[in-house]
Formats: sequence, structure tokens, C-alpha cells
Amino acid sequence: MSKPLWDKGGDEADAAVQRFCAADDVVLDREIFLFDIEASAAHARGLGRAGILSEGEVRDIVRELGALTEAWREGRFMLDDRFEDGHSAIEDHLTAKLGDTGKKVHTGRSRNDQVLVAVRLWERAQLARLEALCLEVSARCLARARATAGVPMPGYTHLQRAVPSTLGAFFAAFAEAFLDDAESARAAYARLDANPLGTAAGYGVNLPLDRAGTTTELGFSRVLVSPIYAQNSRGKLELYALGALEQALLDVRRLAWDLSLFTMAELGFATLPTAYTTGSSIMPNKRNPDVVELLRALPGVVEGARAELGATLSLPSGYHRDLQATKGPVLRAFGRGLEGLALVPTLIDEVRFDEARMRAALSPDMYATDRAVELAAAGLPFRDAYKQVAQELDQLGDRSPEQSLQARVSLGGMANLGLELLEERLTAQLGARPQIP
Amino acid sequence: MSKPLWDKGGDEADAAVQRFCAADDVVLDREIFLFDIEASAAHARGLGRAGILSEGEVRDIVRELGALTEAWREGRFMLDDRFEDGHSAIEDHLTAKLGDTGKKVHTGRSRNDQVLVAVRLWERAQLARLEALCLEVSARCLARARATAGVPMPGYTHLQRAVPSTLGAFFAAFAEAFLDDAESARAAYARLDANPLGTAAGYGVNLPLDRAGTTTELGFSRVLVSPIYAQNSRGKLELYALGALEQALLDVRRLAWDLSLFTMAELGFATLPTAYTTGSSIMPNKRNPDVVELLRALPGVVEGARAELGATLSLPSGYHRDLQATKGPVLRAFGRGLEGLALVPTLIDEVRFDEARMRAALSPDMYATDRAVELAAAGLPFRDAYKQVAQELDQLGDRSPEQSLQARVSLGGMANLGLELLEERLTAQLGARPQIP
Amino acid sequence: MSKPLWDKGGDEADAAVQRFCAADDVVLDREIFLFDIEASAAHARGLGRAGILSEGEVRDIVRELGALTEAWREGRFMLDDRFEDGHSAIEDHLTAKLGDTGKKVHTGRSRNDQVLVAVRLWERAQLARLEALCLEVSARCLARARATAGVPMPGYTHLQRAVPSTLGAFFAAFAEAFLDDAESARAAYARLDANPLGTAAGYGVNLPLDRAGTTTELGFSRVLVSPIYAQNSRGKLELYALGALEQALLDVRRLAWDLSLFTMAELGFATLPTAYTTGSSIMPNKRNPDVVELLRALPGVVEGARAELGATLSLPSGYHRDLQATKGPVLRAFGRGLEGLALVPTLIDEVRFDEARMRAALSPDMYATDRAVELAAAGLPFRDAYKQVAQELDQLGDRSPEQSLQARVSLGGMANLGLELLEERLTAQLGARPQIP
Amino acid sequence: MSKPLWDKGGDEADAAVQRFCAADDVVLDREIFLFDIEASAAHARGLGRAGILSEGEVRDIVRELGALTEAWREGRFMLDDRFEDGHSAIEDHLTAKLGDTGKKVHTGRSRNDQVLVAVRLWERAQLARLEALCLEVSARCLARARATAGVPMPGYTHLQRAVPSTLGAFFAAFAEAFLDDAESARAAYARLDANPLGTAAGYGVNLPLDRAGTTTELGFSRVLVSPIYAQNSRGKLELYALGALEQALLDVRRLAWDLSLFTMAELGFATLPTAYTTGSSIMPNKRNPDVVELLRALPGVVEGARAELGATLSLPSGYHRDLQATKGPVLRAFGRGLEGLALVPTLIDEVRFDEARMRAALSPDMYATDRAVELAAAGLPFRDAYKQVAQELDQLGDRSPEQSLQARVSLGGMANLGLELLEERLTAQLGARPQIP
Repeated sequence: MSKPLWDKGGDEADAAVQRFCAADDVVLDREIFLFDIEASAAHARGLGRAGILSEGEVRDIVRELGALTEAWREGRFMLDDRFEDGHSAIEDHLTAKLGDTGKKVHTGRSRNDQVLVAVRLWERAQLARLEALCLEVSARCLARARATAGVPMPGYTHLQRAVPSTLGAFFAAFAEAFLDDAESARAAYARLDANPLGTAAGYGVNLPLDRAGTTTELGFSRVLVSPIYAQNSRGKLELYALGALEQALLDVRRLAWDLSLFTMAELGFATLPTAYTTGSSIMPNKRNPDVVELLRALPGVVEGARAELGATLSLPSGYHRDLQATKGPVLRAFGRGLEGLALVPTLIDEVRFDEARMRAALSPDMYATDRAVELAAAGLPFRDAYKQVAQELDQLGDRSPEQSLQARVSLGGMANLGLELLEERLTAQLGARPQIP
Repeated sequence: MSKPLWDKGGDEADAAVQRFCAADDVVLDREIFLFDIEASAAHARGLGRAGILSEGEVRDIVRELGALTEAWREGRFMLDDRFEDGHSAIEDHLTAKLGDTGKKVHTGRSRNDQVLVAVRLWERAQLARLEALCLEVSARCLARARATAGVPMPGYTHLQRAVPSTLGAFFAAFAEAFLDDAESARAAYARLDANPLGTAAGYGVNLPLDRAGTTTELGFSRVLVSPIYAQNSRGKLELYALGALEQALLDVRRLAWDLSLFTMAELGFATLPTAYTTGSSIMPNKRNPDVVELLRALPGVVEGARAELGATLSLPSGYHRDLQATKGPVLRAFGRGLEGLALVPTLIDEVRFDEARMRAALSPDMYATDRAVELAAAGLPFRDAYKQVAQELDQLGDRSPEQSLQARVSLGGMANLGLELLEERLTAQLGARPQIP
Repeated sequence: MSKPLWDKGGDEADAAVQRFCAADDVVLDREIFLFDIEASAAHARGLGRAGILSEGEVRDIVRELGALTEAWREGRFMLDDRFEDGHSAIEDHLTAKLGDTGKKVHTGRSRNDQVLVAVRLWERAQLARLEALCLEVSARCLARARATAGVPMPGYTHLQRAVPSTLGAFFAAFAEAFLDDAESARAAYARLDANPLGTAAGYGVNLPLDRAGTTTELGFSRVLVSPIYAQNSRGKLELYALGALEQALLDVRRLAWDLSLFTMAELGFATLPTAYTTGSSIMPNKRNPDVVELLRALPGVVEGARAELGATLSLPSGYHRDLQATKGPVLRAFGRGLEGLALVPTLIDEVRFDEARMRAALSPDMYATDRAVELAAAGLPFRDAYKQVAQELDQLGDRSPEQSLQARVSLGGMANLGLELLEERLTAQLGARPQIP
Repeated sequence: MSKPLWDKGGDEADAAVQRFCAADDVVLDREIFLFDIEASAAHARGLGRAGILSEGEVRDIVRELGALTEAWREGRFMLDDRFEDGHSAIEDHLTAKLGDTGKKVHTGRSRNDQVLVAVRLWERAQLARLEALCLEVSARCLARARATAGVPMPGYTHLQRAVPSTLGAFFAAFAEAFLDDAESARAAYARLDANPLGTAAGYGVNLPLDRAGTTTELGFSRVLVSPIYAQNSRGKLELYALGALEQALLDVRRLAWDLSLFTMAELGFATLPTAYTTGSSIMPNKRNPDVVELLRALPGVVEGARAELGATLSLPSGYHRDLQATKGPVLRAFGRGLEGLALVPTLIDEVRFDEARMRAALSPDMYATDRAVELAAAGLPFRDAYKQVAQELDQLGDRSPEQSLQARVSLGGMANLGLELLEERLTAQLGARPQIP
């Protein structure tokens, strides 16, 4: 590992301590490396505008940062344990290439605002992708809802057969759910869309930094004004971002649970695409819904990350090294969560349903509520109607699913799914997405 | 306890089982009782418009609901263990007063959508109050920031003296933080602002309910369209609401931590208002900052509620009784959280600071960064400037706090707190608050 | 509310602040009130032995504490908001009855060790009850395992039919699980079985308190030696106790999940006792497994409590008022958790199984593993046997469940459940239970 | 990546799906690889004793497993993404080296029990190390407590000066705390010390496996009897193990908090060893207590892991792929937690204290409790003594710390720390540690 930036010589750093401090930072920093470079270039240009760096120095720094980006993209440069972290790697590179000019890039900047701006840029990109994926899932669900609006299937409460439902209603539920989730992603994006660069270690710096300029250049919609709040927001805003991810993954889990049940032999409602199943190491007869089960496990990653942050953030104002421990959980949660979410659109498209088995699972007692409501509509007090029908459950056998479904005419009901409302909302949300720079 | 609504006679319900099922529902329902009544009236009027109830029936029901509201407000009616829960209490009351007409109020409604609409109305009110309190705290912080912008105090990182800061910068940090929190409250309000009434048990009902009408009447901004999603949203949207509460309480905790440190004898920076301290049962010399410590503990209530919900929500689609367990944590977290948050504005106003002790805590080495940056601005590469100053820490003694602070001119820095930007944002957010019906 | 003990007069306590500080302490303290009285009596007797109180004073105090206990048990005395908390109520009572003698009971004691000893006594009792319930559940499961060892049912992995299993194996699994849980309860009991009384506010007191004597009297197995650790253990040991409760409730949840599935119409394996089901408010045809679902929700209460404590405990050494916030979650979690667990023995006894439907769910492909293992035992490499059988899944039709089960002869297998080992372990654990004083 | 074991040909596995399923398994499996090999050898020998494999086959397999172990230790073999996971790598290796014999190693074993036994062996080793580290920390604390028993320092409650304490009492608190933690580690060790090998996919297997033999060979103290419980215990027992780790890390956090405060310039009580501090990237004057802060963050890793598992375990009986997601958090939490804990013994040894500054922080009002108790011991009711002293706080100035401390004679008090009791307990626990095979 290279010497830490703050190394003044003379210290005999214990290796175990250094390993403990470095943790897996250098690996985590691979995720945010390009954003760190991008922000470093913006900082350099800002220093130029503020008269701290000469035009030539700015040009040199920006050029070398571009070269580093290219080397990274082409796999010629790798962050590994030669470096303390990604931030050091950038400064090392510039100093190696540009000598004294490289040593100037950190002027007016602390690692505190450097890491913060890079992480926020990365998170903003994740949230934009989260929103896009949610809208994509919603669109696929809407398409399938339209195509299956008339397909009867049992509606369950308490996992018990309740009343007839439709496959279209099932898909419509997830279409609406993921519209909500896209909005939550957007709200989180808006909260994080504030530029912390220029706040230094948490108390500003004695230079006329062009914070408005770097804000524009990095595509932030506003300046994160207070340097103290910039540091205090670490972890806090990350919890908010994770809260948005959690919303979507909770719906993924719900869907995964449904498919896990629907593919049980005893229900036999659904068949997963082959690529979404695996075999057993010992049982030749098995095809297992592993992907669906791993999707079901996704909220755990977010709950874990939130708990890890939550336990770490009980601190007074200002930067503390504890805050470094907030980076890993956030990177892991978004990495794993979005990787899984990206598999959902195809799953929605390709999961097949067995209409015959779903219809066969509709038993006559499931019309009891229809009957009670009919009696109520005809004037019998509902409580009395309810009791009467409970005594006559064996007299419901001549009803059809279609009859039951067609009478569900209130908005959202099986005869009136309101897909056009969801469609409108989807279109509006698609149109209003933030443009990522 | 009154007989459950679904009691068809003949069952011998085991008392321990009934107690376990009822849990503390009837106590929790006190919180949402008036909202349940309000939604019941809207439902009855909707049934009237749909032709299910006669005008006279609607009038009777609405009148009796009004009487119940009044009895409740005047303390003449109490929810206690005579009732299974608040929902039963309402129906019992109507049936006792109106006979068959009372038995009709539940037509086309399930307890599933009944509890959902009442809880969402309650939560919406809490979120509006959360937003209002956050804006109030922000306003108080802004006022104090303006008044103390020139008061020097130490800025800490890692709890170590770092660079000079100001009391104004301290207050400005919280002013900006609570503006963010108010926005999070608003975003949660928007997510929950959808009417689930009319979705019945999760699959709609065979009646032409006027869902648009009840939506307008209850002041929701849109219909929660899908009956399945209505049920699936239980707990999920509550987690989102709790996420907003968490944001504010994390900032309360940060503030409480700061005050807890600032009031240590060894720092002596701050003195709490007397009403915010208590004595010891054994030590006559103590005045303890109990309120500040209990404020610091507030995020725990939210983390607890979130964990409780999170552990409960791993379920397939549709209503399950597990979901009932989500009500208590949400009520407790908002109840306790807002109770504490409401004490913060006065705390902000009344906490006193000792300028002399804060100034005395500024030691000469805290000017080292200023010096290094000055050298860098003069052309010395920052890394070299850093090393040079580290060797000359004893030569910084002739600087003054004011000198250091006045040079921090970038936006947000101690000489340029940007209070007018925060003020503008506060004004905009105050103006855009939702009107609670 | 009575004046706080530390009230020195002259303070104008703001009512909202006092309510916030008091929280629901006085209600929570109802749970631990008798333990607080018991420990107060032990403290008084210890003061007597140390020569601080006279024999007569001790006798008076102990007598009045006995009277208070009796009044409490008979419902003549109630903790309500006349009192700040239970601790004040005891001292108020003694002072009212005994004047100066009553004012002496707090000599050498702080509320810090007073609440700690009362809570630990309460927790110890809960853990003993947890252990007893776990052993009870295990015994019921063992009995049913013995009676159903030969009843075939499908064994699932990934919720997919895997290989034949038995009802006996199902019950044996829970018998062993709850033996583990009983041991976890015991381990937690042992950790908490240390007397904190006599540590005062966390730094001891200038009196020769008879800590060994109160330890014996209160039935603790050892002294919690360090006063600082006594305070630092608050919350920490509670997390450990909750960890034991969690273990049992995780198994309750697993069982509840199984029963929730087994009672689905599509499986039809099990029928719950009527008292364990409820009806629907709108659907006359429903009997819902509410109790099972509420049992499934129980771990949430513990996760919530753990998260609440975990978020609160990030503190330096010594007592802080934050720690008061740890009491409620612990009381709630054990209260609700044990209430639910107490319903499990009867549930185990009374849940009925439909042997025909379980047998009918055994499909021929479930013998594939048997066949592959047979081929392997005959010398074919297992990987080749696996592939061969995967091609011949349609040739397994002539096997019987009994044939498959009888060949599972390894310990724990369906033909060798090892119930005698579990029985031995149960007997040993029953014999070694702690005697609660 | 090699083809999955269950690959029957013909499937077109989607690459993204395979990556999602594989996750970082192959990296995580590096941690448990040697344990997997060890258990594979035990399984092979057991198959030999059961007559399934010939003596020669067993010898070959065991030899090749030994060669693989050696190759691994010497860095000649690496688990990377050539392999699906570690389990496949072992079987691939044996098959490459031994042909048909290699294909036989999985006879009578499922990956379900294979991964379980490897993980439990790994966890057992971690828990043994956890116990050893806790005892080591306790021993170091005891040594320092003995050496500093007479060194006065302030005792704080609510972070406010309360009564005089000693440095010895501070260290004694942690000595006792870590004794508790060592016991919790032991209890978790005992719970996990049961052999799941031989339970196959969760329902046993039609072979006479020698489970007692593999149990002895792998050094387990008992058989995990029930195959269903073996699977159901996944995650559950891991939560229990994490609960033990949490106990220790909570004490590490408490210690880290204390040191974080004690090293504030305003207190100046303690100085950290140089190797435990780092510099700032921008502020030349800073030495930051990073190690202490990262130690303070450690409980977050455990809370995160527990939350991740907790959110994942809401499942019916039997193996589900969700359970695979429990491996990563456990490995990460123990890895990071023990890495940090291992730094504590040296920290305890080397942290230096400034006796003069600690003594200077003892203010006269801290003797108020002494005075009140003296008055009470002389017969004045304690409540009256308390009030009297509160009026006379300015009359306490002639007392010395030593006077105050010497009067604290109850067990655990500053004049009677009870170190010999802790020493005895430490010796007993050291003597009773499990022998890891």
C-alpha cells in the first residue's frame, strides 16, 4: 500500500492497524472511481476560475484525469492494494505525471468533501437507474395486465381462498406499486441532488471557491450550503436513498413470494422461464425457483445496510472516521438490489400461467360475498345478509367466475381495473425523469 | 369484550386466544378513532350517492357518527376493552342507535379497507405535523444563526479541535438539515395521499362505489386504484412514512449529541434551559440534561418500528393478519417522535452559549490549515505547504479567530453562510404546504 | 403527577417536558413493581445488617412493603399518573406511612441500581418462563412425533416437492429446535443472574453495604461486581435476553409458516383448532388462521425491540437518561412474545392432519433421489447415477412411500428419528432448571 | 464459470441470471474452503465405514483432498470465478484427479448439508477465537486495573461530573464486561457444536451413514439429529452466533466512546498509541483517533448482518435459496468484528493516562453525595440529608479524592474493586475453554 497522504514520516504504522483502517476501501472505491475523477476535474477547473491554478495547470490536470479515466475503462489501470484508497490513487497519478502541479489538486479540498461528492454522484446515478427500472417493471406489468384482464384466478386473503380475482388485477397491482416506487426513487434523487464539493473538512476554507460553478458542471440542481451539514448529512441521506431502494425491493419480494407459491405443485398456477430455475445437487427430479428466492431475499440486503448505518450514525456533529463505515453497505445494497431488480422485467414478461388450473381453484364458496352484497343492495342490512349467507354456503354452486368479476365495477375492481389511469401516470413519470449529465 | 363482528355463534373462543388476537388494538384505535368515524361518514355518503343507502339512512348514520365524535371529544365515550377494536365500536354504536340502518354501514366495505383508510388519514396528519415542526425548527435555527454569525467557536472533526468555526455556522447547519427533513415529510405525505376506501378485502366489491367522491370528500389527492395493491401497500408505505420521521430524528439526535457534549463541565460551551434538566435521586450536586438525552434516544423508536415492520412484511400478496402488527409500531413511533420534536423549537431558542469559553477553546494550532492554504494560494504545491506547516505548528500563535473566519468566503463558509438562500427555501416550503382538510 | 424526588423547589417545570420525560414509565413500571418492592425490602434488610437502619426501622419498612404488595395484588393500589414512576410510588408510600423512616429507604441506593435490580429480577422470571415454555412445546412435539412417525407426507425444498417425509419427522424437527431454544433461554438467564443492587449511581457508595447478603436474599447466583459495568450492562444484557427470546420466536414463526401453508385449500394437509381461527367482516365463507398469522408476526416484536435498543446504546460509560428508553421495548417484547408462545403447546396438540391428502401429494418423481442413491450404493459414480435417473423420471412409479421412508436409516432419518436422544435431552434440561426464588 | 453440478445439458442459462445466482459465493467460500475439504474427507471416510466406498477409494479421495489443502495453503490453488462455488471446486478437483472415484464423493450428501457443516465448522472456530480474544482483553484490563486502582478520575453520569472514581474502576468494568462476553461466546459455541453432516437435503438419505463417526471425527460434541431442523437452523443459529459477537463489540464500542471523549483536548485524560492515530488530508495540525472511531463503528457490522438475516428468515420449513444470502453477512461480520477486536488488547496496554488532568477535573461539588450519605449514616433521613447538602454545595471544598474513594468499601466500590473475584472467574473460564480439533 502506498503511504497515506497525511504521512509526515517518522511514524511506525502497525500493519494490522493499517489493514483495519483501510478495510476494503480500495475495492469499494472502484465503484465510485470515475465519479471521483469527474469531481476532481470540476474542482480543478473551479480552482482555475478562482485564480488558484493557472490555465495551464488546469489543462494539465484535466488532461491527465481524462487519461486516467481512459486507462480505467480499458482495464489498463486497476485500483488494488497498492493504494490506500481511490482518492490517493488519483493524487498519486497526477503527481507522478505532473509533479508539483499534481500536488496542487487537493488545494482547498479535504478528503471529507472529496469522498462525499463522489459518493453522491454515484448514488444519484443509482437512483436514476432505480427509477428507470421501476418504470420499466411497471410498464411490463401494465402490458400483461391489459392482456390478462379477463383471466380468472383465486383471490386470497390469509392465504385462504376469498373471492374470485383476475390475473390482470394481479399484474395491475404491481404496475401501480412500481409507479409509487419510481416516485420514491425520484424523491431520493432530489434530496441528494446537492453539491457538497467546496465544503472542505466541514468548516469551509479560506479561498474564494466557485461553488456555483462546480455545481453546474457536475449537474447538481443546488449547492449543499452548510459545510457542517454536508458532513452531518453523511449516512443520513444515504439512509434516505436506501429507503427508496427498500420500497422497490419490498414489492419485488411480494412478487417473488407470489411466484414461489404459484409454482408449488399443489397450486400449479405459474411456470418460470427455464433460465430462472436451477437443479439440485442430489435430487435429479428438481427444478428450483432459485432466482425468485434470491429476489425474495433482496430486501435483507437493504435492511442490513440500513441497520449498519443506523447503528453507526449516533454521533456529534462533524466528520468522524466511523462515517467511512457507511460506504460499504450503501454500495453493496444498491449493487445487489439493482442487479436483482434488473432481472424482473424479463421475469414479468416470461412467467407463464395455467388458466385451467387457476380456474379449477375457484370453489363455489368464494361467491358468498357476492351474494351477501347483493342481498344488502336489495335492502337487507349487511350484517343480516352476512349471517344468512353463512348458513347457505352450499347454495352458491351455480355462479360463474365471469359473473362475479363483471359485477366488480368500482374503480380498481376486476371489471374496471383503471389501467388507463396507471398508464397516464406512467407516461407522466417517464416524461419527467431527470437528465443525468 | 363484545362479540367479534364475524361471530356466527357456536364457536367457543378461548379467552387467551382472543386476548392475543385483540392485543392492544382497542387502545391503539383511540389514536385513529376520529379518522375512522370520518371515513365511515364518507363511506355512508358514497353509498347514498351509489343508491345503496337511502337519503334518510345516510342522514341518520352521518348524524350518529357526529354524535359519537362529540361524545368522544367530550370524554363521554371511551374505547376500552368492552370493544374488540375501534371499528366494532363504531358499528356497535350505529346499530344500537339506528337498528337495521346501523347494520348497513359496512355494506361494500371490509375491515381491510376500513382500517387502511383510517390509518392513512392519521398518518397524513402526522406527516403534515412533522413537516410543520421541521420548518419551525429550521426557522428558529435561522434566527439564531443570524444573531450568532460572528461568534467564534471551535470546529471539531473526530472530536478533535480542527479549525475555528462559528456558532452561526452551527445553527445554519441545522437550519439546512431541517429544510431537507421537511421535504422528506412532504414526499411521504404525497406517497400516502391516495384513497384506499372502496377496495374492500383486496379484490373490490360488486357495487358501483363512488370512489372518486370519497376521495374528494376525504381530501385525498388521488385514488389508490388497485385493491390488491391497497393491501400490499400496508406496511410498505408505513415504512416510507417512518423513513421521513427518521430523517428528522437523526438531526434531532445530532443536535442532542452536540448539546450533550457542549454542556460537559470540561467544555462548558452551553447551558440548557432549567426546565430541560432534572436532578439526581442520590447526588445533590447534579443537574442532568435528561431531555437532551431522551431526544437523542428518539431515533431508536423509529428504528425499532421499522425493524418490526420489516420483519413482518415478508408475505405473499393479499391481506394477512400479520399486517395488524404493523399498526402499533407506527403509532408509537410517530407519537413519541413528534412529542420530542415539538420540544426542539424552544430548546433552540433558549439554549445559552458561553462565548468566552468557546473562544478560549480555540488553540493556535487550529490556524494550521489557513496557513497551508495561504501558502498554496501563493503557489506552493499544497502537499508541500501541508508538510511545511506541519513542521511549524508553533509559529501560528499571532492569528485571531476573526482573521481566520473572515477569509472563509466560499458559499457556506463562515464569512458567507448563505442564510439568505436557506431563508428563501424556507419561505418557499412554507408557502407550498398541503392544506389538511 | 407527584413532584420528582430530586425536586429542590423553585424550578418551574414545563408540563410538556415533564410528560416527555415521564413517557409511559408509570405504566411500564406496573410490570416490575413487585420486583422493585422485593428488592427494596432486601435493600432495607441489608442496611439493617450494615448498621445503617435500626432493627425497628427495617421491620417497619419491610412490613409496609408487604402491605403495599398485598394492596397491589388485591387491586387496592394502582400505579397511575399520580406518580412519576414506580420507584417514587414506593418511597412515597413508605414516607406517608412511616415518616422519617420511609425517607431512609433510599440511603446508599440510587435510582440507577434500583431500576436495574428490579428489571433484572423481572427479566430473570421471564427467561425462566421462556425456558419452561420451550421445554413444554418440545415435549408436545415429541409426543406427536412418536404418534405420527409412520405417517407419510411430502418433504419440500424451495417449496417444491423433493422427497417423501413423515409427519413424525416434522414434529421431531420442532422438538429439537425448542430444546435448543430452552438452552438459549438458560444461557441468558445465567448471564443476567448477577446482582447489581449496591452499585448506586455507578460508582459505589461510602457505606459498607452487604452486597453478598442481598445477592443471596434475591436469589442471584453472583454479585455484579463493578458499579460502572452495572450501568454499562444496561441494554447490553437486555439485548442478550432478547436474543434468546428471538431464537424461540424464530421457530414459532417457522411453525406458523408451515401451518399457514398446510391449511391452504390447495394443500389441505392440516386443520387448525376452531378457537385458533376467526371469521371475516365481509366474507361469510371465510375461517382465517389469524392466530397462526399473529404467531408468525412475533419475531417482529423482538427485532423491533432489539433495533430500538441497538440504536440507543451508542454511548460512553456511565448512566445516561437514554437508557431509560430501553425498558419499554424489553417489556413489550417479552410480554407479547411469551403471550404468543404460551398458545403454542395447545396448538401443537390440537392441529389435525389429513393423512390421505398428504399421501396423495406424494408424486412418483419424488423417488428419484432414492433411485440415484441406490445406483450409487451399487457402485455407479453418484454424478452418473444422478444423470441417468434424471433421464428416467417416468420409471419411478411403482415405489411406495413406506419403501422410501424405511430406507432412511441414518440417525435422524425417517426410519430412525432419534426421538430417544431428544427425550433424554429434554429430561436432562427439565431436571436442571433454575429454581426461581 | 464451470457448469453447475445440476446441469443436465440443454439449458441456455442467461448470463445475468447466473451471475445474480452466483453472487460473490466463490469469494465467500474462500473463508470456509478448508473446512469444506475437512468435512468432505470425514464424509468420505464415513462412506468407507458404511461400505459405500472401498478402502482404496476413501484413501484416494482423502489424499487428493490433502493435496488440495496443501495447494491452497501454498497459494497454488485459488477459488475464483472459474468455479460456481467452493463446493463445486472440490468435486471438480476430485473428478479431474480420480475420475469415477471423484464423482462418488457426493454420494449420500447434498449441498444443503455440505455447506451447513462447513459453515458451522468455520463459525465454531470464530467463536473460539472470539472467546479467546475476550479473555485476553479481560486479562489486560485486569492488569491495568491492578496497577491503577488508586488513580483518581472523575466519574460521570449523563456526561456530567458526578462523583470521584478511579482509573482502576474504569478498567475493572471492562474486565468484568469481557468475562461476560467470553461466556456468551462459549454459549454460542455450544449451541452450534452439533454435526449436521448426514442430513442430506433435509430429509435424510437411504444409506446407513455413520453420523456418530463423522461427529467424532469433526470434533462436534453431538449430532444435530433432525434433518429438517438442520435446514431450519440455518440463519437461526447464525443469529445466535452473531448475538455473541454483538455482546463483545458493544463493549468495544463503549470503550471506544470513552477513549474518544478522553482524548478530546478539553478533557485531555488519555493519549492513544501513535500507531492508533492518523493524520488529516488537509489539516496539518491533526492527529485523529481513527482506530478508536472504527472500533466504535464495529457493532454496526453485526447489526447489519443480523438485520439482513432477520429479514431473510421468514420462511416455511426446508431449504430455500434465500438461505444462501445468510452466508455473506455472517462471514463479513465475524471477519471485520474479530479483526477489530484483535486490536483491543494492545490498545488497552498502551493507552496512556494523564493523572494530573484527571485529578484537576475533580471539582468540590462531586463530594456532595458523600456528605449526604454521611449525614444519612448518622441518622438524618436520606431525603432530608439530600436537601440539606443541596443547599450547602459550597461547603465541600476541603475534601480529597482519596478520602472519598477510601470510603467506597462495598464490593465493587473504589476501595474494594473485587479484582480477585474477577481474576478467579478469568482463570476458571480460561481453564474450561473448548479444545478445537
